[in-house]
Amino acid sequence: MNRSELIAQIKAKKSFLCVGLDTDINRIPQHLLDAEDPIFEFNKQIIDATKDLCVAYKPNLAFYESMGVKGWEALQKTLNYIPNNIFTIADAKRGDIGNTSAMYAKAFFENLNFDSITVAPYMGKDSVSPFFISEGKWVILLALTSNEGGKDFQLIESNGKALYKEVLETSSQWGTNSNMMFVVGATRANWLADIRKTIPNHFLLVPGVGAQGGSLAEVAKYGMNKDCGLLVNSSRGIIYASDGENFAHAARKKALELQQNMKKELINHKLI
Amino acid sequence: MNRSELIAQIKAKKSFLCVGLDTDINRIPQHLLDAEDPIFEFNKQIIDATKDLCVAYKPNLAFYESMGVKGWEALQKTLNYIPNNIFTIADAKRGDIGNTSAMYAKAFFENLNFDSITVAPYMGKDSVSPFFISEGKWVILLALTSNEGGKDFQLIESNGKALYKEVLETSSQWGTNSNMMFVVGATRANWLADIRKTIPNHFLLVPGVGAQGGSLAEVAKYGMNKDCGLLVNSSRGIIYASDGENFAHAARKKALELQQNMKKELINHKLI
Repeated sequence: MNRSELIAQIKAKKSFLCVGLDTDINRIPQHLLDAEDPIFEFNKQIIDATKDLCVAYKPNLAFYESMGVKGWEALQKTLNYIPNNIFTIADAKRGDIGNTSAMYAKAFFENLNFDSITVAPYMGKDSVSPFFISEGKWVILLALTSNEGGKDFQLIESNGKALYKEVLETSSQWGTNSNMMFVVGATRANWLADIRKTIPNHFLLVPGVGAQGGSLAEVAKYGMNKDCGLLVNSSRGIIYASDGENFAHAARKKALELQQNMKKELINHKLI
Repeated sequence: MNRSELIAQIKAKKSFLCVGLDTDINRIPQHLLDAEDPIFEFNKQIIDATKDLCVAYKPNLAFYESMGVKGWEALQKTLNYIPNNIFTIADAKRGDIGNTSAMYAKAFFENLNFDSITVAPYMGKDSVSPFFISEGKWVILLALTSNEGGKDFQLIESNGKALYKEVLETSSQWGTNSNMMFVVGATRANWLADIRKTIPNHFLLVPGVGAQGGSLAEVAKYGMNKDCGLLVNSSRGIIYASDGENFAHAARKKALELQQNMKKELINHKLI
């Protein structure tokens, strides 16, 4: 999906919600365990219940890999089931030497047909550029993450500039705002104003709203740009809203709450 | 495999060779393509031909993931086939928030029974510590990589200290030299002397000997410690030594050359 299609979807759905599919066999409702493929069955019902409210789905690869072959099968089926007008993110945090990143690009972009993949920046340009394979495929590079350990290295300053800002400045030259986005955690929302000085036009993937404690209003206040420029993710807050037979309905309710708040922000910022 | 078992294997085999299983369906010999599982068949013959010469195998996850479900099956079979007295490394470059890293630990340590996994440091302590699950399981953290992009961020200096040294100093406190190793590229072998001042006792995984151009003698000169402290990897230089029916024999020949040179270094350093 290219940039203009993504922006059109955001405006049409009045939403910049990404639903994180961190699907854990130990947390899905009991009654699904009898299904032939419980992980896919769960995802299918979550997708059916939320697809008109969100513009992106983000399967977290670790949850599928922890299930081995069955997990990979469930992931393939999930990708096939997600409607084509919804942006897909392989939350995989990959990144390796060139020939290896090219193999990951094949795995996620060609075989599974994801629109984008999250990548860690530590190994530099030649670990990232193999993912720029064609229009409509995106790298979402880690910049400032919302976890406690995010501060261990990302905030180290060199000549007064934190590492995450160096990552933003340097790596934003590798691609364009049509094939690169950045991960910026919502728990550091007030830093977004500063980040927007470096990358005014790029889309940001913002995890950490919900279970990790970030505020949507703050994220919109400091991070929204003239094209919206935000994908805000919620995983556990939506998909595990209930562990009963009503889980999909409960997920929809949570997604609807977020979408309604997002609609307000889009109106406030005169984007719709 | 714990530290003393690994050291014993190195001394018994007179080798600190790690064979990288970057098995690519497009590069394996044609005659294997008729096998039920060509990737596993290739790995099996490589393992049979080299298992007395190396102390570790390192499957590169990207190559298996690029094959989807079939790749994952080949990986499982390969892990089951590797003898228990050989150290196994999931070259996966993972690293994510705590609950996600825990899922990767389950995938690689519990399900596939790898001894170790390569991890990227960017997300900090809580992305690494979920991999410390029990004795004999190891994190191999990226420090200084051998690719061109390694210099983009790893060499950024803060108060005169390069980022990769900060990564070494900080992260070496998270675990011990019995559950952590570090990746240091062989193309920067002369830097090893300096690295050894920070982490004298940890094992180092050194890729880049062979196809990437590093020298074994240099690596041993600057990097070897009183327990050897090195695992030197060669992938393409061994497994693709020939693309004919004699590929396993050719691989053995290349592995033997490296092992013989390693034996000399171990003798020179009075380790055997």
